[in-house]
Amino acid sequence: MTHQHIRQAIADCDKAISREDFESLLTFYAEDAALVIKPGLIVNGKENIHRAFVAIAAHFNHKLVVTQGEMQVIEGAGNALVIMETLLDVPAADGTTSKIKRRATYVFRQEPNGKWLCTVDNSYGTDLLSAI
Amino acid sequence: MTHQHIRQAIADCDKAISREDFESLLTFYAEDAALVIKPGLIVNGKENIHRAFVAIAAHFNHKLVVTQGEMQVIEGAGNALVIMETLLDVPAADGTTSKIKRRATYVFRQEPNGKWLCTVDNSYGTDLLSAI
Repeated sequence: MTHQHIRQAIADCDKAISREDFESLLTFYAEDAALVIKPGLIVNGKENIHRAFVAIAAHFNHKLVVTQGEMQVIEGAGNALVIMETLLDVPAADGTTSKIKRRATYVFRQEPNGKWLCTVDNSYGTDLLSAI
Repeated sequence: MTHQHIRQAIADCDKAISREDFESLLTFYAEDAALVIKPGLIVNGKENIHRAFVAIAAHFNHKLVVTQGEMQVIEGAGNALVIMETLLDVPAADGTTSKIKRRATYVFRQEPNGKWLCTVDNSYGTDLLSAI
């Protein structure tokens, strides 16, 4: 299994975040999906996720660029657990950018039409345990 | 949300593994669930998962004890991503036991009857990325 559809969906999401195309981005989330904004702060539902991404974009002065590092996909019973390096280029105070590397965990669910939708978006991975 | 049902299911699974009650254990897995046996080795389906647990029990001389540390549950769109410390007491060559601590990631899905079933069991968490 190459998991091409899931890999493509994640690549499309990261591009949509980088260009702030939240309408396209939200088509990849299930209706009542969860997003971990930061450790201890989780929102559910497309409307709240949209609001969170608008706030995140503003927080990073509209200069956030998201790319992907190494990725592993484990598929079981209509779900897929994605373990991957997420690379963030974030603006620093002096106008340069700095890089943040996270090990993220995402859950996807396959719809009856074959499309994969994100149900849980946790870019903090297992670091959640030490963070709160 | 306290996620009491999911927490109870995981506690019951760990007890079933420790006492090698694989019949009870398998009732917590979805039909085509995935189990990461070790980095790079994944099996799907209850029959293969059963076989894997039998082999794991033998590998640890029937002395494996699994308990839980800190846990976080993120619920979205009928799925739950569980991030938790899994503590393994494993037998050493000299007859004593040693402790292994992992940061595991599990995916659960809620069935129409309300029961939560495991669809992806990856006790290696994000360490999968560096392990292969």
